[in-house]
Amino acid sequence: MFLGLDVLSSQLSSWKDKALFTPGPLTTSRTVKQAMLRDLGSRDAEFINIVKDVRQRLVTLGSDSDDYTSILMQGSGTFGIEATLSSVIPSDGKLLILINGAYGKRLLKIANIHHIPATELTFAENTQPDIQVLEQALQSDSAITHVAAIHCETTTGIINPIEEYGKIVKAHKCVYIVDAMSSFGAYPVDMKACGIDFLISSSNKNIEGVPGFSFVLAHKEALLAAKGLARTLSLDLFAQWEGLEGDGQFRFTPPTHSILAFHQALIELEQEGGVVARGARYKKNYEATLSAMQEMGFQAYLKPEDQGYIITSFYYPEHPNFNFQQFYERLSDKGHVIYPGKLTRADCFRVGHIGRLGLADVKALGSAIAKTLIEMNIHISEKNEE
Amino acid sequence: MFLGLDVLSSQLSSWKDKALFTPGPLTTSRTVKQAMLRDLGSRDAEFINIVKDVRQRLVTLGSDSDDYTSILMQGSGTFGIEATLSSVIPSDGKLLILINGAYGKRLLKIANIHHIPATELTFAENTQPDIQVLEQALQSDSAITHVAAIHCETTTGIINPIEEYGKIVKAHKCVYIVDAMSSFGAYPVDMKACGIDFLISSSNKNIEGVPGFSFVLAHKEALLAAKGLARTLSLDLFAQWEGLEGDGQFRFTPPTHSILAFHQALIELEQEGGVVARGARYKKNYEATLSAMQEMGFQAYLKPEDQGYIITSFYYPEHPNFNFQQFYERLSDKGHVIYPGKLTRADCFRVGHIGRLGLADVKALGSAIAKTLIEMNIHISEKNEE
Repeated sequence: MFLGLDVLSSQLSSWKDKALFTPGPLTTSRTVKQAMLRDLGSRDAEFINIVKDVRQRLVTLGSDSDDYTSILMQGSGTFGIEATLSSVIPSDGKLLILINGAYGKRLLKIANIHHIPATELTFAENTQPDIQVLEQALQSDSAITHVAAIHCETTTGIINPIEEYGKIVKAHKCVYIVDAMSSFGAYPVDMKACGIDFLISSSNKNIEGVPGFSFVLAHKEALLAAKGLARTLSLDLFAQWEGLEGDGQFRFTPPTHSILAFHQALIELEQEGGVVARGARYKKNYEATLSAMQEMGFQAYLKPEDQGYIITSFYYPEHPNFNFQQFYERLSDKGHVIYPGKLTRADCFRVGHIGRLGLADVKALGSAIAKTLIEMNIHISEKNEE
Repeated sequence: MFLGLDVLSSQLSSWKDKALFTPGPLTTSRTVKQAMLRDLGSRDAEFINIVKDVRQRLVTLGSDSDDYTSILMQGSGTFGIEATLSSVIPSDGKLLILINGAYGKRLLKIANIHHIPATELTFAENTQPDIQVLEQALQSDSAITHVAAIHCETTTGIINPIEEYGKIVKAHKCVYIVDAMSSFGAYPVDMKACGIDFLISSSNKNIEGVPGFSFVLAHKEALLAAKGLARTLSLDLFAQWEGLEGDGQFRFTPPTHSILAFHQALIELEQEGGVVARGARYKKNYEATLSAMQEMGFQAYLKPEDQGYIITSFYYPEHPNFNFQQFYERLSDKGHVIYPGKLTRADCFRVGHIGRLGLADVKALGSAIAKTLIEMNIHISEKNEE
């Protein structure tokens, strides 16, 4: 008797998890997940000490100066972004947002819902926000008090020059907020050199933890200025920091297991050689992916000089048989999860390069894609048609 | 060579986790934690199906009617409460809050920060909010559109009569919001019989999952009326529901591992015999705890008829040697975590009865407390002094 494909596929998943070529949640190490096999009291000394160590390690990843601190915030990365915007901009402030993708737009959406005066500079999704335009905007509008930028815009995978923006932002004495969700832990960042006052990322990105919270690295002086400004209770960044600094506890129940996993992930990041070594591994994943995809005839959406090694957008192949949902499912059934596109003007899908994945996984993905193209009877380049 | 106590204690913790006699995070089953040893793509079919099953099981725990739905919300229980209050009360609405403890006060704090018109009826912490007073308030203030009550006020462990409040709330055609954080899953609740429109609880309470998200059971009609009312992006209850109902996905990264654990926890709740059987186990824990504590001379804060079987507040013993911090640490070093008090007018500590704990654990706690009292040279009753 033969089992149906559905049954086989669900049995497969109980053997081995699929490789996640996504922007997160990611494939994590076995030991990171095993760190969750414990129940700790959230107000007990052992957990408090772990939180303290996590916060200290995060600060060190962003700066070697005592001027910075870190805050953990329950929820996804967006919760951390909303916590920051809704907690640090006073009602008489004004936020300028650099936009070249969906995550920049999300900042604007958050500002709007909280009635935070905001203005935007929007650029094409395949273009870095222009430094001259930023400078002109700050010169012509002295009401602007805060500037927000995205480091790696996950919409496309483009890397924006946050250090160059920072120099201009600081020259105009504005507070500088950077959404480093997809870049932190894989691209070295120096908070001081970049002039960053608030940097936001999350537990399930390049640190290779599991989802459950976001974190904010903050310049202490800028954070102290945020006291009493929050527009919500749960997402009050200053109050959260005050609690963590006070008795070391969260104000509200922390995701204890996710934090245990993250602590282990930070140790493993150090063991791998820190941010530089991790970035190098991801870059190899990216290069191998790009080369395999180009070999098969796929085209990347971005120019190579703008493209980061976090995630890459590929155009849908121009072939009548191509159907993304089918392509996705066939790859997923083979054990490889890719990611849909998020572009407004081009049909793309995305392949992530981050998480506990290496060249063997990339090679397996390439083979699965080649096989899937054959199954779907898609020929996208002369190379494949020869 | 002898190891110091600190070292021994930290070695102990690596053998076996402490028993958590707290209101959560709780001691969970081995199998619930093991369910987290997987990395699933948050937009992949397997995870989407698990979320669907979790949501359906939650609805069934609150009602057998199709009129109800459920929403999962990232963050702790307070995030779910804030999501509800800030998403379902229009700017021309008015909220009445029944308060007899810290969690009732928190509702008021949330309403205030969102500028939601709110009024309160505050009662002593050892007293259930009075039904007559509620009725009079609704009769005398026709501007009130929403009423919020706490089921188990974790401050003391008191159980408030939410069904009786509900009858009055519904007679006045108000929307009824119940914070069932500490009671749901251990006290049977019938959403329809109680007239509840929104009920909030969290993953790390009586379902015995790990922390990471809250959930809301909602009357569909009341939820549909909340469209566009949200005051935040992340905590928009309606938009979250719309996403889950649409493509089955979270709007923003879900805590995938916590949800896998919760799914397993829901299956184990069913295996134990559902809410009634679980409540019965907790009640036995409570009775055994109370009896052991009274035997040692401790006094419960509440009258037995008001006391629930979730958590019990005990007065500090009147003895010059008693110091809560020391008492707590000595118990923690012996492998038992209790909880500090939260009362405004009485010195109490709390002992929880929930989580994957049974009579053997309660007995071990009793022995540890007896031993600790001897170590601290505390004699609190004639019984102990005979």
